[in-house]
Amino acid sequence: MPELRKDPIIGRWIIISTERAKRPSDFISPQRVTGSAACPFCNGNEWMTPPEIFAFRNENSIKDKEGWRVRVVPNKFPALRVEGNLDKKGIGIYDRMNGIGAHEVIIETPQHEVSISALTNKNIEEIILAYMYRMRDLKQDKRLNYGMLFKNVGISAGASLEHSHSQLIALPTVPKIAKEEMDGAKYFFDYRGRCIICDMVAQEREDGSRIIFETENFIAFAPYASRFPFETWIIPVFHQSHFEKMEERYAYELGKILKTVLTKLEKSLEDPPYNYMIHTAPFNYNDLEYYHWHIEIIPRMTRVAGFEWGTDFYINPVPPEDASAFLREIETDS
Amino acid sequence: MPELRKDPIIGRWIIISTERAKRPSDFISPQRVTGSAACPFCNGNEWMTPPEIFAFRNENSIKDKEGWRVRVVPNKFPALRVEGNLDKKGIGIYDRMNGIGAHEVIIETPQHEVSISALTNKNIEEIILAYMYRMRDLKQDKRLNYGMLFKNVGISAGASLEHSHSQLIALPTVPKIAKEEMDGAKYFFDYRGRCIICDMVAQEREDGSRIIFETENFIAFAPYASRFPFETWIIPVFHQSHFEKMEERYAYELGKILKTVLTKLEKSLEDPPYNYMIHTAPFNYNDLEYYHWHIEIIPRMTRVAGFEWGTDFYINPVPPEDASAFLREIETDS
Repeated sequence: MPELRKDPIIGRWIIISTERAKRPSDFISPQRVTGSAACPFCNGNEWMTPPEIFAFRNENSIKDKEGWRVRVVPNKFPALRVEGNLDKKGIGIYDRMNGIGAHEVIIETPQHEVSISALTNKNIEEIILAYMYRMRDLKQDKRLNYGMLFKNVGISAGASLEHSHSQLIALPTVPKIAKEEMDGAKYFFDYRGRCIICDMVAQEREDGSRIIFETENFIAFAPYASRFPFETWIIPVFHQSHFEKMEERYAYELGKILKTVLTKLEKSLEDPPYNYMIHTAPFNYNDLEYYHWHIEIIPRMTRVAGFEWGTDFYINPVPPEDASAFLREIETDS
Repeated sequence: MPELRKDPIIGRWIIISTERAKRPSDFISPQRVTGSAACPFCNGNEWMTPPEIFAFRNENSIKDKEGWRVRVVPNKFPALRVEGNLDKKGIGIYDRMNGIGAHEVIIETPQHEVSISALTNKNIEEIILAYMYRMRDLKQDKRLNYGMLFKNVGISAGASLEHSHSQLIALPTVPKIAKEEMDGAKYFFDYRGRCIICDMVAQEREDGSRIIFETENFIAFAPYASRFPFETWIIPVFHQSHFEKMEERYAYELGKILKTVLTKLEKSLEDPPYNYMIHTAPFNYNDLEYYHWHIEIIPRMTRVAGFEWGTDFYINPVPPEDASAFLREIETDS
């Protein structure tokens, strides 16, 4: 059983993932990404993954067989386990609980595509809908308090399989960054009476210098305090605290702006390693006036070193205004 | 002039380091580490660095010439600038100030050694003393509030030169992690009346399962909530909030335990990339009963991916008790 442990000074949680336990020698050879040979995410290799949890399937196709378009399965090497109870406990000054949670993989296409940007808008719409449906389902489990949807592309961004996929980890406790965002946004709301992210969208639109792309209901811009070169956030212009509560009619448009932004990043930076994460409100909060879900995309072109680890201060060599001006000019089909 | 910008939601600062400004194409070729040919940190190449700020020198040797044992110079590509005023300003919901601060390099040996663990204990004592002297000096500058001493070893840990060196960045604002540590430790102190890190040392000593090495006045252990496999903290057993206030007589012993621990990590993980950071109290705080400086060493064997970036939750495949048992057994000369 994996274990969750809390740092007693700053309250950061970690997962001791015993199911993945390793000897020092396992760390010595460089990590590799599995290519198309024997890819467990490819059409026809459904037997290589645990049984599917959800899929968009062609009519008359059968669970765990070919004929799916987007498929969600449990991670074969999960960081957390679904079965069991939390067994929260203090050990002197330390706190721990069992590593209860869900760890799922969203396989984005049956073909061996390595980039989400190569997929059709219709396909990406179904990926977004799969994200929402899985979040709505996991939210029913009262042991779980937070769902993090994320994507790793490229070895240095933590990917171990190249076939286009995302992951969802649902946690029994609200993670530190989500708590900080809730607290920070609430503080602003208590003082000004407005959602800070709505204000941010308004200010970015008025200023214009950091905007990368806009659609009717979504905006993509380089955040004012970008940690990384070419960091990009995608935000709905309508106020909403929980991603999974988005009306389904927006999924196509969100997929489209996501594809446009990723295409711009891939073209300008020659297929960089990157991560994206959907920041959203915890499951057990009602609709919040003060918080606003969004997607953060971080190309991983710079190395994170001792200074950043010791301070959470980031050194970014590219002003977001320059990154944005550059990305705005990159042509895409949309 | 570099610029400091604050994330309006969670209060994280970033440095827009315009002096290092780059075009997208600069990110595309992989980074390389400069080896011994034309190493600006080697004996005889003193002209390749900016003029020295401090050095331990052999008698009768001359500033910026050979004859030094440990040498401190400004970083040639500094993230921050010493000259100027802060010019703090709000721009709508955003906050910024000028990137005032110091960015220094501590060159640890005149020979082209790539590992601090290859140096003599006497040499490492002088490195520790140089750290302390530079912190004491920078603290006099009332514009500066925090000094972060850190070391990057290996490309994936952010090093760009292999010659053994550390860095010191002094900041005009207390970084987020230091603030969180101060707040967390203060909260514990207000409730229990004791320093949380003193309590941690006591509990680790009683338990024993995470201890890696001990000397009379210092202890090295794998922290209970280790983010990374083989993460190791070195803590003075005496209570002290500010590293730079350490009595100089301890510098030799601290250097010795640092060397022992790094030797153990290098032997067991075959010279892993790593960072270490000295966590200490802000300059403008008096001696604190509730906070306790320490060194955090993080071997960089695992990749930080979307989940960690989105949550600050870490997945560690090696229980610290196992890491510690393994490192305890590794023989060193000390």
